[in-house]
Amino acid sequence: MAEVQSHIPGVQGFKVAGIHAGLKANGAEDMALVYSDLPCVAAGVFTTNTVKAAPVLVDMEKLAAHSDGYHAVIVNTRCANACTGEIGIVNANAMANHTADALKVIERGVLVMSTGVIGTHLNMEKIAGGISLAVSALGDDWEKAARGIMTTDTRPKSAYAEVTLSAGTVRIAGISKGAGMIAPNMATMLGVIVTDAGLTASQAQAMLSKSAELTFNRIVVDGDMSTNDTVVMLANGASGVSITSDADCAAFEEALQAVSRKLAQDIVRDGEGVTKFITLHITGAASNADAKQIANTIATSPLVKTAFFGGDPNWGRIVAAAGRSGAKFEPANARLWLAEGEELTRDLLLFEAGMPTAYDEDRAAELMRASSVVVSLDCGLGSDEAVVWTCDLSHDYVSINGHYRT
Amino acid sequence: MAEVQSHIPGVQGFKVAGIHAGLKANGAEDMALVYSDLPCVAAGVFTTNTVKAAPVLVDMEKLAAHSDGYHAVIVNTRCANACTGEIGIVNANAMANHTADALKVIERGVLVMSTGVIGTHLNMEKIAGGISLAVSALGDDWEKAARGIMTTDTRPKSAYAEVTLSAGTVRIAGISKGAGMIAPNMATMLGVIVTDAGLTASQAQAMLSKSAELTFNRIVVDGDMSTNDTVVMLANGASGVSITSDADCAAFEEALQAVSRKLAQDIVRDGEGVTKFITLHITGAASNADAKQIANTIATSPLVKTAFFGGDPNWGRIVAAAGRSGAKFEPANARLWLAEGEELTRDLLLFEAGMPTAYDEDRAAELMRASSVVVSLDCGLGSDEAVVWTCDLSHDYVSINGHYRT
Repeated sequence: MAEVQSHIPGVQGFKVAGIHAGLKANGAEDMALVYSDLPCVAAGVFTTNTVKAAPVLVDMEKLAAHSDGYHAVIVNTRCANACTGEIGIVNANAMANHTADALKVIERGVLVMSTGVIGTHLNMEKIAGGISLAVSALGDDWEKAARGIMTTDTRPKSAYAEVTLSAGTVRIAGISKGAGMIAPNMATMLGVIVTDAGLTASQAQAMLSKSAELTFNRIVVDGDMSTNDTVVMLANGASGVSITSDADCAAFEEALQAVSRKLAQDIVRDGEGVTKFITLHITGAASNADAKQIANTIATSPLVKTAFFGGDPNWGRIVAAAGRSGAKFEPANARLWLAEGEELTRDLLLFEAGMPTAYDEDRAAELMRASSVVVSLDCGLGSDEAVVWTCDLSHDYVSINGHYRT
Repeated sequence: MAEVQSHIPGVQGFKVAGIHAGLKANGAEDMALVYSDLPCVAAGVFTTNTVKAAPVLVDMEKLAAHSDGYHAVIVNTRCANACTGEIGIVNANAMANHTADALKVIERGVLVMSTGVIGTHLNMEKIAGGISLAVSALGDDWEKAARGIMTTDTRPKSAYAEVTLSAGTVRIAGISKGAGMIAPNMATMLGVIVTDAGLTASQAQAMLSKSAELTFNRIVVDGDMSTNDTVVMLANGASGVSITSDADCAAFEEALQAVSRKLAQDIVRDGEGVTKFITLHITGAASNADAKQIANTIATSPLVKTAFFGGDPNWGRIVAAAGRSGAKFEPANARLWLAEGEELTRDLLLFEAGMPTAYDEDRAAELMRASSVVVSLDCGLGSDEAVVWTCDLSHDYVSINGHYRT
């Protein structure tokens, strides 16, 4: 298994910046730039919401036309540039082009991301100023870059791993932001992943898509899907090491998933108002789609989430959520366990043969009050399974989202 | 239009009771009985959750086998008798049979409902005592009966209307409970509706199903679907007035829908922690199913609901929810309005042609802070529409559901 750490010591050929452009009122970093002097192949995964923000539309079009020749990703916070029509598209292109001009790279070589309030236009004057600042601040401070994409996140999110391939060592690093509007479908966040491995564009896209499906697509904070969800991967080949064998491919893929998993899980851990990290492990489902559907329905149930917040072992709500999921589910076949921690373990059996077991209520309450809880639900119908990571629903979630714009 | 009032003066041939059986700790009414000395035809609509509580399974089986000869509905609170396996079925049948014996009617003539915590068994000793108390308390106090089915409801819910048919006047009365676990599908609550009209069983079922689809199925508190949702209608024919013409049928149906609509809307108004009553009016959808799907996705969106709680006109979240609904939706075609009140009116246009209008922000904030808000979303894609009633998501919802069992 690839070892993943939070600190990013650097990835050959990449420079980053996180700066204050005057978008956040508190003076914090509010724009970020990731740049490679060597041209990169690029891959992306995007929100499946039909209401796509302008930067999403711009990036999707760029990546559909070309898969290499990329040099940078520019990101702003406080304004999602979504529901902004033609003006939004013009502004997103201008933001990318300003950046390309300042970096002296081809205009199509810059990807763009925005996050923040939906339905307001970008302040292009502040954005232009921020771009100049970011270009002149380019360096190795990945933490500042990670701060530069935060919205309601309380801390920066980053992950780094090294992978030894047959021809040498390569590095993978990523930053992400999330906190709210995190749904069980597609990227559900902003993320930038870079590597100095030499990848073909099709390798990059295939590995990023697969990794996203098992990591970024398996986290739920509130079930709302953003208009701006984007994860982009840039590979510049600066290490001189390419992937030339199945073994190399497997090793790189495993490390990419480990980096992605940490970035994804950190989003849940830092979800808006979160007090608990919950791992849902659905087994014995009739199909893979059913397993995911059951997990997602439990993960988005307000009654399940508030019971976790209250530390109340009201497990009937978990079974009831599975029953309304639309997936095949028969209570008589199902078994439900609670355990503490983050590993896929089973401890206290609560429900079996259609009714409660003679479990110890104090022990159940103790497990529900743990800061990390594993819920295992065996459907007893087949052999498919899914893992989804989620969190509770607290007073603070309501406070944060009741007054987000103010 | 049928005039609907809260107070139920009485319906010929029906007696009711609401009593304290020792299930609620605070001494409040916790069981209810509705009884007709004349045998009734009965109709029912039930939860579509695959995890159905024992009383739901028992009632469904009874109504599948017979549609007349019914005399009573017995209801308990504090325990849903769901996820209770064979023991649950035995207990639900025993509860019905006890009631039938005490009323001296045939055993299959009693329907049964339970509401409360999932995954615990009924206390049959208290239930038996409660049945005796209820039978001896039978009378005209519909408010007590409505109190006897309340869980986290803060007030009893009842509705009454009179309808003049060609052969005379008939009465329709109903009681309901809701508050949480209210989803955009099927009954999503408990309800008992009675009438002294003479209906055939097929008339009763057809009219109840249609009415539920337009009222009980169009309310959303939190999107969680209960294991126990049931609405039953009993018709005893005591008025001597039957429905013999299409005009009679239309008049009765209109009144039944008005009674059901009030019972349904009162559930939203008294939803857990609710501070706002929100009417969602989706028009111009590509299909009827799309209109409902868009309305339900907006109504269950935590980000939309918390924005309403905070009085923040963060309308981009409404458009984003429509975009992730899975229904056909194109932001460039859509228009979004806010208005105050409960009528299907449009006032302030916020979004058009894919971008915000030059609306007055203060006016938008004022509308969002109203206690009743109408959200109108025209999809601009077709001619289908839907109305759904919902509410905000507040700190109190989280508090109530974090500690429901304790």
